[in-house]
Amino acid sequence: MNERLYLYDTTLRDGQQTQGVQFSTPEKQQIAAALDALGIDFIEGGWPGANPTDSEFFASAPTFDHARFAAFGMTKRAGFSAENDDVLAAVLNAGTQAVCLVGKSHEYHVTRALGISLAENTENIARSVAHLVAQGREAIFDAEHFFDGYLANPGYAVETLQAALEAGARWVVLCDTNGGRLPAEVGRITAEVIAAGVPGDRLGIHTHNDTGNAVANALAAIDAGARQVQGTLNGLGERCGNANLVTLIPTLLLKEPYASRFETGVSAAALRDLVRVSRTLDDILNRVPTKSAPYVGASAFAHKAGLHASAILKDPSTYEHIPPEAVGNARVIPMSNQAGQSNLRKRLADAGIAVQKGDMRLGALLDEVKRREDMGYSFDSAQASFELLARRHLEGLPEFFEVKRYRVTVERRKNKYDRMVSLSEAVVVLKIGDEKMLSVSESMDETGCDRGPVNALAKALGKDLGPYTPYIADLRLVDFKVRITNGGTEAVTRVLIDSEDGQGRRWSTVGVSANIVDASFEALVEAIQWKLIRDGAPRIALAAE
Amino acid sequence: MNERLYLYDTTLRDGQQTQGVQFSTPEKQQIAAALDALGIDFIEGGWPGANPTDSEFFASAPTFDHARFAAFGMTKRAGFSAENDDVLAAVLNAGTQAVCLVGKSHEYHVTRALGISLAENTENIARSVAHLVAQGREAIFDAEHFFDGYLANPGYAVETLQAALEAGARWVVLCDTNGGRLPAEVGRITAEVIAAGVPGDRLGIHTHNDTGNAVANALAAIDAGARQVQGTLNGLGERCGNANLVTLIPTLLLKEPYASRFETGVSAAALRDLVRVSRTLDDILNRVPTKSAPYVGASAFAHKAGLHASAILKDPSTYEHIPPEAVGNARVIPMSNQAGQSNLRKRLADAGIAVQKGDMRLGALLDEVKRREDMGYSFDSAQASFELLARRHLEGLPEFFEVKRYRVTVERRKNKYDRMVSLSEAVVVLKIGDEKMLSVSESMDETGCDRGPVNALAKALGKDLGPYTPYIADLRLVDFKVRITNGGTEAVTRVLIDSEDGQGRRWSTVGVSANIVDASFEALVEAIQWKLIRDGAPRIALAAE
Repeated sequence: MNERLYLYDTTLRDGQQTQGVQFSTPEKQQIAAALDALGIDFIEGGWPGANPTDSEFFASAPTFDHARFAAFGMTKRAGFSAENDDVLAAVLNAGTQAVCLVGKSHEYHVTRALGISLAENTENIARSVAHLVAQGREAIFDAEHFFDGYLANPGYAVETLQAALEAGARWVVLCDTNGGRLPAEVGRITAEVIAAGVPGDRLGIHTHNDTGNAVANALAAIDAGARQVQGTLNGLGERCGNANLVTLIPTLLLKEPYASRFETGVSAAALRDLVRVSRTLDDILNRVPTKSAPYVGASAFAHKAGLHASAILKDPSTYEHIPPEAVGNARVIPMSNQAGQSNLRKRLADAGIAVQKGDMRLGALLDEVKRREDMGYSFDSAQASFELLARRHLEGLPEFFEVKRYRVTVERRKNKYDRMVSLSEAVVVLKIGDEKMLSVSESMDETGCDRGPVNALAKALGKDLGPYTPYIADLRLVDFKVRITNGGTEAVTRVLIDSEDGQGRRWSTVGVSANIVDASFEALVEAIQWKLIRDGAPRIALAAE
Repeated sequence: MNERLYLYDTTLRDGQQTQGVQFSTPEKQQIAAALDALGIDFIEGGWPGANPTDSEFFASAPTFDHARFAAFGMTKRAGFSAENDDVLAAVLNAGTQAVCLVGKSHEYHVTRALGISLAENTENIARSVAHLVAQGREAIFDAEHFFDGYLANPGYAVETLQAALEAGARWVVLCDTNGGRLPAEVGRITAEVIAAGVPGDRLGIHTHNDTGNAVANALAAIDAGARQVQGTLNGLGERCGNANLVTLIPTLLLKEPYASRFETGVSAAALRDLVRVSRTLDDILNRVPTKSAPYVGASAFAHKAGLHASAILKDPSTYEHIPPEAVGNARVIPMSNQAGQSNLRKRLADAGIAVQKGDMRLGALLDEVKRREDMGYSFDSAQASFELLARRHLEGLPEFFEVKRYRVTVERRKNKYDRMVSLSEAVVVLKIGDEKMLSVSESMDETGCDRGPVNALAKALGKDLGPYTPYIADLRLVDFKVRITNGGTEAVTRVLIDSEDGQGRRWSTVGVSANIVDASFEALVEAIQWKLIRDGAPRIALAAE
């Protein structure tokens, strides 16, 4: 029988301490539902009473299939009884099954920050926990600054844990609040705490990433015997963030000694949804996903080195530590000028284009890729543009539409209220089959804000594609990156555009020109072409054919 | 006497395996110079002969004050003698003091990927290393897939190390090539390798971040006795990246047991430059710096929680694991602008504007700076725009000219030879004194190439500034950077323009708008204003005055 290891998520509380992050109530509901579906054991929703959003979220009383809902607060203040502390009362009034209270375990913080005696602090912890238990709640004690406190006064730090346990706490959690401790000491101290009589199956670990070791510190505590681990999605959290559950979960499920030893609430099927869960949070935060994120990043299984790519073709395990599909990710063999023909064939295969080894066209295509990279194109960031280039070379591309011309005007002048305002207008003229289509759009968005010439151009281009218009109805531009780079000897502009559609596909295209509007237009046109090909849009025959 | 721990940087080689990263030769030179100034012991420049950029960088033969220059390659191939392997010859021909050769230490890779016998592989390693040593180079052997190989066949994995050492390698490096190993096993295996007779002071560690443990794995190997650690700036590298030296270095210099035990090439003074080194790489890559990066991130010492912020005011060590200034970072406390005002006075003094401590105008200026930074402005990179903003607030700015309106048109259409060509045209209307000046320019350069709408606009703006025209005769735009950033909740474009004049002055201005042309225009106007102020141009009085 495997040991149970519990996962405790604090994205909605500690995660919200991230600079620039403030979740709305519907966002909290969406994140909580994703955590529950993933199989997280505890979902900490916030601090009821601390701010209006947190209170509103608890009032909406989400229900979960699997997870226990937890409220966060602090141990009662000196001078109040647990029953009469209004801060504590607000936490309990949220009515959650589990309640996590933070309290001091570092003597310096007790005497310096709280200004009370060590005995008073221990008493506050015990009374607060007993009050939770009396109300039938699962009581969790977060021992703030535990590791720093243990190094200063180990006896007192452990005494605070024992006070909580004796008062009926289900869990005591060792917190590296300042995030400065390293794995070896976290492992050693956790083992010493267990040796001092705190049972491992009532012990949790809460770590921060200030030395880049949040995940390793959590693992070190689990190695030493802790059986609850706290963290956040995508490692959100105050300062450098908390332990990243999106990184920890696959390690615990897929790697030894954890995989054979522990059972968690996360199933193999839920694990295959991990990339999507991680992206959901990025979408809510309007953040560009971190490409290099362990397990779930877009680059996590990208093999750029030519030697690696050729070995991957023989056996993926040669350069992959897990199968990417186990976490819902996919292998990527990008193009770059370090890659050879084996990369190229693998990339073509991924795009559904089979080419035999030694095919003479490979050399010519590789030369073209290199020539364009010298001009400033970057195909390892823009795989859709690579696919179009390859198809054009190998099999010819259907010409869905021809761009006859376009014109964009940017004007800035005073409006009738004597304020300077700007507006862009774009005219795009296309030929589709035998028909000429003229479209015009301007750059104003629904809030009356000018979004600039590229926006106007994108709208005009997509406005009327004749028979293709339904194909691009669900196309959205989700990111736009501009870089000045060297194309040959001249500075040129490289524009990368990420697009998304209703099927959840995401693809990137690139345009390069000395003229930023031209470069953007090229990437926009390719974004549409790629979708039309993928969705099998028919080519419109010309009357002359 | 402290033990020497060696730092080996592979930003220019393994870092370049990052998806989307391709350094130019001047960029490699700039990064190498920053690494040398930081005090890195080994700078690996790339793989000579593998691609044109790497070869060009080695041909430029950078010289260092402190670091040893290293070339990367692979051990000789079976069927060639070390002397006759042209791949190895290209590496040696780069003429570096140190040479690092990667070779196989995992039996499966030897028999499967190389298709040779274990004995042949060991022989290839020994012969290759002996060849380096015979040529007077410091030989480093990167044992690829060492940990995976050790788990499969410990005897053979160690045999490859011993072959390299016996052939004269100064270092053998244990590589977790696939990045899948965890700290506890890295520590255990490193200790076993040392117990098997490999001296710790000839042992290096090379880790990847596929489980989020690259830094922890490097520390575990150091704990076990390894004395060379490999990594990259900002954790660049294939897939999820390499061990981040920007994270490791402060841990090794500031934290126990490392600080008391080891000596590295990095001084406390160089460490205070760490934020700048990290930002330099981000600038080169045109990446937005990671706010949550350990030690150097903009949020690394940001205290959002109210409880934390008030304790920090009493004693920073309550919620900070190191003093932020030790790595060149700064504390951020929302709602407290004490630290902000002294920063501000320092920046004003740098611009030649003296303001007394406690001057009431400082608070208002600081609020305006913060408001604009929230909108996406970046005054750290655009000192000239900061100076204009400060002067406008503190003493008022002379209005040399007023922009009444402008219009830019970008057109793309077929020319008479039936080729698609683009052309931009800009009209700028200014008022100078009582006179209205209309100027028009187009974007074609002297070679007939279209340089785009910003170029046309810059030319029209500078074409006729009336009495100010001679003042800007020597003004040249030397760089133009575009970044999509978050201004409040909306994505906006930030344009940074570097200008230069005949006196050799160089200054940077910034513009921000959802409209890239507007953002560029704002930065162009400020570039001219700054020069007019610096050169003491007189304000033209209006007739009404």
